[in-house]
Amino acid sequence: MTQLATTTGTHFTQLDAGPIQRWPDYNVTLPGLEIPGKLFIKDILGLTGCEVSINAMPPGGAVPFYHFHQQNEEVYIFIQGQGQLQIDGEILPVKEGSIVRVSPAAERTWRNTANTPLVYIVIQAKQGSLAQYSGRDGVIPEKAPNWA
Amino acid sequence: MTQLATTTGTHFTQLDAGPIQRWPDYNVTLPGLEIPGKLFIKDILGLTGCEVSINAMPPGGAVPFYHFHQQNEEVYIFIQGQGQLQIDGEILPVKEGSIVRVSPAAERTWRNTANTPLVYIVIQAKQGSLAQYSGRDGVIPEKAPNWA
Repeated sequence: MTQLATTTGTHFTQLDAGPIQRWPDYNVTLPGLEIPGKLFIKDILGLTGCEVSINAMPPGGAVPFYHFHQQNEEVYIFIQGQGQLQIDGEILPVKEGSIVRVSPAAERTWRNTANTPLVYIVIQAKQGSLAQYSGRDGVIPEKAPNWA
Repeated sequence: MTQLATTTGTHFTQLDAGPIQRWPDYNVTLPGLEIPGKLFIKDILGLTGCEVSINAMPPGGAVPFYHFHQQNEEVYIFIQGQGQLQIDGEILPVKEGSIVRVSPAAERTWRNTANTPLVYIVIQAKQGSLAQYSGRDGVIPEKAPNWA
């Protein structure tokens, strides 16, 4: 897939990654490794607080290694399909709606166990980096939304 | 929706939030405000690097205010439906596969413009907090995955 349309304004960048059924066409190429169905978006969007990938692992797919992190906590959000996430030797069944926090030190790998793509989002953020959030970080200015 | 099953191990916590068609049943209750179709997961999972919400805004739905952030960058990932995201007065059409980085200072609001739920994930992470990521933060130990 070659078309990655982005739109940028003063305070935003938008990517249209296309409908989920096209996500299997993305590929990440690393030294000695091709990962089908993955797109990293940090550098595309200019993120500074987290790395995010969108993923559609094909049927029969599996990550061919364990990995852990030095600094970053991960969150896995599964939105279609069925699979297994293995963490420190423990096997967790995952499916649409499964959301998993994984600490940096965990040795993890995962695989698709169904006949349809395993679709999920992975977030990497530095462990302990969030200082305040939601109502303590957000501010609501005193003006009503105007859609005209 | 009252059942939120979590499973916790040494290095993970898993939530099964249920299939996306049930996400409209979640609600966030804030002082003076009820937000239908939203579930914050930071406190459920014990996240320390980001706040994440899963969202299914009903047809006709709209956020009734603008908001901006003091510290946190946001990422909006739209996975079903169609809507509009308004940032500093600019209106961006969003749909399945739209992914938007929003800087802390941006005044933002959004609405569902279709007859189906607008389903999306919002990530909050502290601007500038990510020090290293992916191949520079991840480590691959020298052992093959064992699924036995």
